[in-house]
Amino acid sequence: MSTRLLCISDYEQRAKSVLPKSIYDYYRSGANDQETLAENIAAFSRWKLYPRILRNVAEVDLCTSILGQRVSMPICAAATAMQCMAHADGELATVRACRSLGTGMMLSSWSTSSIEDVAEAGREALRWLQLYIYKDREVTKQLVRRAERMGYKAIFVTVDTPYLGNRFDDVRNRFKLPPQLRLKNFETDNLAFSSKEDFGDNSGFAVYVTKVIDASISWDDVKWLKGLTSLPIVAKGILRGDDAREAVKHGLDGILVSNHGARQLDGVPATIDALPEIVEAVEGKVEVFLDGGVRKGTDVLKALALGAKAVFVGRPIIWGLASQGEKGVQDVLEILKEEFRLAMALSGCQNVKVIDKTLVRKNPLALSKI
Amino acid sequence: MSTRLLCISDYEQRAKSVLPKSIYDYYRSGANDQETLAENIAAFSRWKLYPRILRNVAEVDLCTSILGQRVSMPICAAATAMQCMAHADGELATVRACRSLGTGMMLSSWSTSSIEDVAEAGREALRWLQLYIYKDREVTKQLVRRAERMGYKAIFVTVDTPYLGNRFDDVRNRFKLPPQLRLKNFETDNLAFSSKEDFGDNSGFAVYVTKVIDASISWDDVKWLKGLTSLPIVAKGILRGDDAREAVKHGLDGILVSNHGARQLDGVPATIDALPEIVEAVEGKVEVFLDGGVRKGTDVLKALALGAKAVFVGRPIIWGLASQGEKGVQDVLEILKEEFRLAMALSGCQNVKVIDKTLVRKNPLALSKI
Amino acid sequence: MSTRLLCISDYEQRAKSVLPKSIYDYYRSGANDQETLAENIAAFSRWKLYPRILRNVAEVDLCTSILGQRVSMPICAAATAMQCMAHADGELATVRACRSLGTGMMLSSWSTSSIEDVAEAGREALRWLQLYIYKDREVTKQLVRRAERMGYKAIFVTVDTPYLGNRFDDVRNRFKLPPQLRLKNFETDNLAFSSKEDFGDNSGFAVYVTKVIDASISWDDVKWLKGLTSLPIVAKGILRGDDAREAVKHGLDGILVSNHGARQLDGVPATIDALPEIVEAVEGKVEVFLDGGVRKGTDVLKALALGAKAVFVGRPIIWGLASQGEKGVQDVLEILKEEFRLAMALSGCQNVKVIDKTLVRKNPLALSKI
Amino acid sequence: MSTRLLCISDYEQRAKSVLPKSIYDYYRSGANDQETLAENIAAFSRWKLYPRILRNVAEVDLCTSILGQRVSMPICAAATAMQCMAHADGELATVRACRSLGTGMMLSSWSTSSIEDVAEAGREALRWLQLYIYKDREVTKQLVRRAERMGYKAIFVTVDTPYLGNRFDDVRNRFKLPPQLRLKNFETDNLAFSSKEDFGDNSGFAVYVTKVIDASISWDDVKWLKGLTSLPIVAKGILRGDDAREAVKHGLDGILVSNHGARQLDGVPATIDALPEIVEAVEGKVEVFLDGGVRKGTDVLKALALGAKAVFVGRPIIWGLASQGEKGVQDVLEILKEEFRLAMALSGCQNVKVIDKTLVRKNPLALSKI
Repeated sequence: MSTRLLCISDYEQRAKSVLPKSIYDYYRSGANDQETLAENIAAFSRWKLYPRILRNVAEVDLCTSILGQRVSMPICAAATAMQCMAHADGELATVRACRSLGTGMMLSSWSTSSIEDVAEAGREALRWLQLYIYKDREVTKQLVRRAERMGYKAIFVTVDTPYLGNRFDDVRNRFKLPPQLRLKNFETDNLAFSSKEDFGDNSGFAVYVTKVIDASISWDDVKWLKGLTSLPIVAKGILRGDDAREAVKHGLDGILVSNHGARQLDGVPATIDALPEIVEAVEGKVEVFLDGGVRKGTDVLKALALGAKAVFVGRPIIWGLASQGEKGVQDVLEILKEEFRLAMALSGCQNVKVIDKTLVRKNPLALSKI
Repeated sequence: MSTRLLCISDYEQRAKSVLPKSIYDYYRSGANDQETLAENIAAFSRWKLYPRILRNVAEVDLCTSILGQRVSMPICAAATAMQCMAHADGELATVRACRSLGTGMMLSSWSTSSIEDVAEAGREALRWLQLYIYKDREVTKQLVRRAERMGYKAIFVTVDTPYLGNRFDDVRNRFKLPPQLRLKNFETDNLAFSSKEDFGDNSGFAVYVTKVIDASISWDDVKWLKGLTSLPIVAKGILRGDDAREAVKHGLDGILVSNHGARQLDGVPATIDALPEIVEAVEGKVEVFLDGGVRKGTDVLKALALGAKAVFVGRPIIWGLASQGEKGVQDVLEILKEEFRLAMALSGCQNVKVIDKTLVRKNPLALSKI
Repeated sequence: MSTRLLCISDYEQRAKSVLPKSIYDYYRSGANDQETLAENIAAFSRWKLYPRILRNVAEVDLCTSILGQRVSMPICAAATAMQCMAHADGELATVRACRSLGTGMMLSSWSTSSIEDVAEAGREALRWLQLYIYKDREVTKQLVRRAERMGYKAIFVTVDTPYLGNRFDDVRNRFKLPPQLRLKNFETDNLAFSSKEDFGDNSGFAVYVTKVIDASISWDDVKWLKGLTSLPIVAKGILRGDDAREAVKHGLDGILVSNHGARQLDGVPATIDALPEIVEAVEGKVEVFLDGGVRKGTDVLKALALGAKAVFVGRPIIWGLASQGEKGVQDVLEILKEEFRLAMALSGCQNVKVIDKTLVRKNPLALSKI
Repeated sequence: MSTRLLCISDYEQRAKSVLPKSIYDYYRSGANDQETLAENIAAFSRWKLYPRILRNVAEVDLCTSILGQRVSMPICAAATAMQCMAHADGELATVRACRSLGTGMMLSSWSTSSIEDVAEAGREALRWLQLYIYKDREVTKQLVRRAERMGYKAIFVTVDTPYLGNRFDDVRNRFKLPPQLRLKNFETDNLAFSSKEDFGDNSGFAVYVTKVIDASISWDDVKWLKGLTSLPIVAKGILRGDDAREAVKHGLDGILVSNHGARQLDGVPATIDALPEIVEAVEGKVEVFLDGGVRKGTDVLKALALGAKAVFVGRPIIWGLASQGEKGVQDVLEILKEEFRLAMALSGCQNVKVIDKTLVRKNPLALSKI
């Protein structure tokens, strides 16, 4: 291998060069004009770091906990769909890499490896299930039951996807799964997004979502879900303080500040810009997490300084997976870990508990790479 | 047809490729350095959306009313002049497409199809007449009378055009109508902007306007117009709160916040930035509309969140018309409708009444596509 | 002539194509990194216009007065040095063009036509003398006396040039006057910036200024100048409110807000951004003028809305002169006049007295052309 | 020599053309995505100058003092490592050039000429020692002792480098010293960063730092250093007001506001933006200096207006050194001196004492060259 991969964007370039275009497009795209896609990255640059000096950082402890479970660092794998498109080992590679790093993996409902196979491959790994609420509640319920049975530690229920966002590339590519793959958590062709189904001229996946996912879900369904399981439940996809307070009131256990990787409603704020309001709204009653645009160790530090308990990375995992399978995911996580460790050290932080909000200030005019 | 047209800018590209340059230039241009032309688009991007979650959006109702008339969506066709330059079917295609969609069309005084022919072609369609006040008040009066007779439901009187803005392309192109076309609402060559007339070296249309349009109009002429007809009257082209209050005081029925598609005075604000002040000034006494820069469903949502009752789209209609005649206009309106429907759903809005100002906040530093 | 020249930047392009590089460079350049050069233009774009409607603008009166003298419009020719480099007719062409337009010309001390010849060529034209204070006070005094004698109506004394700003192009070009030209107001080679003098490796003009211009001038010299003449005296080159108040206290008759066309200290604010503070500081006791970056009719309107009595244009005159001599200057002034007339009309201003500060607001994030 | 070198960026271009890539990269690079590297420059442009007029600037006095020692100008040579890579004369050329200019040189602990040789070469020159605290305190102590013995006037102790920042170019280049060079202040290959050592696949220098530099240093080590010497001690690398106050409390004699040339933690603010808070925090009790992004005379003026006693320039010295050895450094310092002199004159400043904060205001939207 001639070029060395030193940072996440190196892995994206590699992934771009090895993946079929329509698959790369699927992972890379944001909704519509992709303004939020660019914002998720650029907004991090507008938050400036104010490091402390002379704090003895010979040892830096990155450990933290998520919903009571210990992780080696506050950087986990976000749920991304259909990972076997990126590499034959797909979700199994990801869970193994997370296990090596001592961090957690959020498995998508739409995985191309089953809940059980992922549990099998990464038994000791901390795992959570990302949940879509299907029109068919029995289907939905079974996903939760299987997660409980296989030792998943929480349910991250997606609340921002009554319909799929409009991603032009997927429409142009008439995106569907390669013939050899299926959503492995489902039996029927219909639910498994089989390429045998007819999706017309559109993004096949948008058609799938409209067919099977429940656009009518409301806070009552959150209550139903709470009644269904004793696993902790985290709302994935909140961007407003009032919705965050509502989630706390409904007894949820955490909030994942997310704009779905900028793939749903274009024009929403960057997650790092939405985070402070959510943190303030929940008044410390539940844990707050963030995904969206995290590409560097300093991004993680900024998110924690603004009150996140941990961050989730989606596309970086995919770029690692596409580049080199399990090893690639492991490398990506190690790069982020090492970058975060160095960012903590250079900011005078011996452990995550001393990361506080004085470390960041917004300078809206600072130059970003974009 | 090889490339699929998925969004309004695809239609603009198509239109550009099929229209003669001087005609494309006429439609596309803004005044002078075209700063406001860019601003109209870019300003939308600086307003960020803050969607609500878990609101049961299985059904989304886009209906609203304009001056008491029901429309299927708050997106209507703005008055644009001389549509037969874009496609032989011109205004007749536009009114038919609006009828199909169940929305309204504002017909320009400067149409290349007559008030009567458009009424004929789109009898059941909701139609309004855009009015220029001519130096010859009898001419002006007859336009109003004909609109009344043919069932137009309101008069949108233009208040920002005592002279035509300076559009460099039109000067360079010595723009005039193709020989086979005329402004069909007028008899004489003079009033009909016939290409037989001599316009010297200038933009023919700027010369026409100076000759026939009344630069002396004032609030007294608004009173005169009010006395002339019982149709609702909307002032088209207001950008200041004090002028909006004056319009209300003079008994007008609505205000169209507009900078004339950035074609009159360059350097005025984007209409979406001017909107909030106007909405506040009129204190709910009249309906407020907006045109200028609306290219996406999220633009519509932002305008409604900031208090507009509906938006008007001008150039998108022309791009549709140039691309595929009536079908093109219909497709453009359907794209906007579907984008708006999805934007509402992903923002947790079941109907237009629940769209409120908490859905938008200005982030002046967000990245725009421009 | 193949391309039509419709706006000032067309004239700049033309001038660039006809002038020798080192002469074009001399006129075009700003100091050092030329940040202020770009700012002077860009800052105008950040001020947005808020036009009034329905004000009867059939007639628009552009007249105003400057220090008690009537001009046909608030747009005058700024002092720019050595105009015979741009065209053989130089300052004589400029004064004739100003006379045709009914506006005033500020003649540079560093003109390549003498005070007397310019007076002769433009006897009925309103003329002012721009004055540098020379180390030799007798030389300085004679400039004032000659201006008095020849009917110049005021002295604009430059206060921002104790040394010449560092303009890289002039250094690289070792800029000096072409052999056939001299500063015509002076007899000796030394004072006349004759190309026979030796300026070493540097910008010849910077060397000239260091040799002959007085870097020691202070407010006392302003008193001396006041005592010397009964002509009105305007301080040219003020950017701070406290300095403006000081000028008023010393009995000066006007202030020209100027950064010397961005040619002296790079990094100073755009003049349009400095203007409001100066206007506020002088409390209406003296007239305030502006130069720097005026290229369009809307720029003039913005400056007047922010309190300037009139604006001066420098480079646009040079571009006109280089393009077509007297006719070019006349065309440039007519373009600006017509653009300003249209801007007033489209803003609802019947005359310059009704231009007020509600017409402009700063939108720092608006897009500029730059 | 064909092209004349007129400003610092001319020298950078020259240096780039003569240096081996990996050496140029070493000097030029910032950490990670180099956002702060760009910010250090761009932030200066956002501070606008408000010059005073008519202040008699025939004579401009640039002298000031640093920690009680007189310098001819408030512009000194920053500590940059391994200068013999840029030119065979390395630190000896630099100290000689500083002596010629009558200004001071900060010698890096990591110099390729020894403390003694530099003192020898520039005996009358004002010299300070930049100090890294080594794990081996005896090594550290000897550096201080040798500086005392050789007449260095202060210790600048670096507090922002418990580990080396991650500079991608150095990793890709597997950067290490050329074989003929060593860190001359140390005996052993290990401490001397000898190319004979094995640094694996990484930036050799990052490996070196991890091995020998003490990441555990805290305020207690500052006390230890205070106890070790009676030389004044300046903390190099402070960006927060609270840390600055802490430094004052610990009896330090000065603060160098620095982000290590943007080479340590990427995403920290530009030093010119951090400066005002530090100046305010120390309440005049100690001297405050600045490095980072100073490339022009106006940068120096801005830093002094915001409260810096003097500025240090790093890369400009290297570009001069690489271009022409001692003469190049001298030229670079003379360019900065002359630019600063002109900036003072054009701002109405006769000496550095009258430079006050009214000379600058932040205009965050001004255009920068970047």
